[in-house]
Amino acid sequence: MTEWFDSVESTDEAIMAATYRALCTHGYAGTTISRIGEEFEKSQSLLYYHYDDKDDLLADFLTYLLDRLEAELSDCQATAPRECLTSLLEKLAPRDPGEERRQFFQALLEMRAQTAHKPAYRDQFERSDAVIVVEFTETIEAGIEQGVFADVDAERAAEFIYSTLYGALDRSVSLDRWDPLDRTRQELDRYLESHLLAAGPGA
Amino acid sequence: MTEWFDSVESTDEAIMAATYRALCTHGYAGTTISRIGEEFEKSQSLLYYHYDDKDDLLADFLTYLLDRLEAELSDCQATAPRECLTSLLEKLAPRDPGEERRQFFQALLEMRAQTAHKPAYRDQFERSDAVIVVEFTETIEAGIEQGVFADVDAERAAEFIYSTLYGALDRSVSLDRWDPLDRTRQELDRYLESHLLAAGPGA
Repeated sequence: MTEWFDSVESTDEAIMAATYRALCTHGYAGTTISRIGEEFEKSQSLLYYHYDDKDDLLADFLTYLLDRLEAELSDCQATAPRECLTSLLEKLAPRDPGEERRQFFQALLEMRAQTAHKPAYRDQFERSDAVIVVEFTETIEAGIEQGVFADVDAERAAEFIYSTLYGALDRSVSLDRWDPLDRTRQELDRYLESHLLAAGPGA
Repeated sequence: MTEWFDSVESTDEAIMAATYRALCTHGYAGTTISRIGEEFEKSQSLLYYHYDDKDDLLADFLTYLLDRLEAELSDCQATAPRECLTSLLEKLAPRDPGEERRQFFQALLEMRAQTAHKPAYRDQFERSDAVIVVEFTETIEAGIEQGVFADVDAERAAEFIYSTLYGALDRSVSLDRWDPLDRTRQELDRYLESHLLAAGPGA
């Protein structure tokens, strides 16, 4: 179905893949345990055995997603800081996401808007923001150490880069128009070029 | 109740003020016509006379809010571009919003996450994004013309500044933590300082 769920082995993974497909198809509001069940190839009763309700399942889905995100993002730490930075940008806010990925971002956006009412969701989004900001911070710090990035306040730059990406993606998803993301990423490249990649004294 | 609704004169304005208070108190999901009625000092039947349902009323509320935002933002065009820019930043993403304003941002965020299902909401948010980006663009263009800003791509910078502000505000609202907004605005000031305010050839 997607590169995220192309090899599903355990029952847990099959549940997560079914949840992903249901969110892409029905959005957050339209996703129910029964609709997740329709996407699930094994017995639906397994779902009800594992989970009390939709929120319970979706909180687990967010945890699962975040574990994967964490593993995926940290992949690039072995590469050069500049390439790692580019890869983080593209993983978090792809310039040209396919239709399915757009629908999934839309569902995630709806879930994130629920945090005031659902503490279990908030915990996961808090963790995801922390993971992402740390990933950017460490990449920037590595670049500074290796002398390829300017000596900036790494955590502040990380927070800024992520807010910018997040805002552009969120605006594009909610308007279903991708030019805000495209233009923002162009200007972000310019910021990175002049603030970060201009290494050396006084940069 | 708030600076936005401190002088309510017409019935329409009273309905909008009641809607604002209901959204602050109950959030988007918890707001119903009946709860708006509880905040309304005149006859509740007026509400049902004017509006078919909650969505109908809230779409109208978004239009009203946007008209006010448009008037409020364009206020600063008479002042110097640099001051106007600062004032736009503070109006759109205040560094220290009060509790009521935070709750209201939360409700707006929830409404924005509904755009995939509610075309009337999407139309309004599309217009609000356009209004804001135009306001930033014109302010930057004025600064370039007056020689106080560098000769940047005004629309691209505007799109970038708004995505950054929006992302920081959205992240802070959904996490109910204001340090992402604070740090992002610090770095945004730095970006503005070096990209925009450094006027002159080659800047």
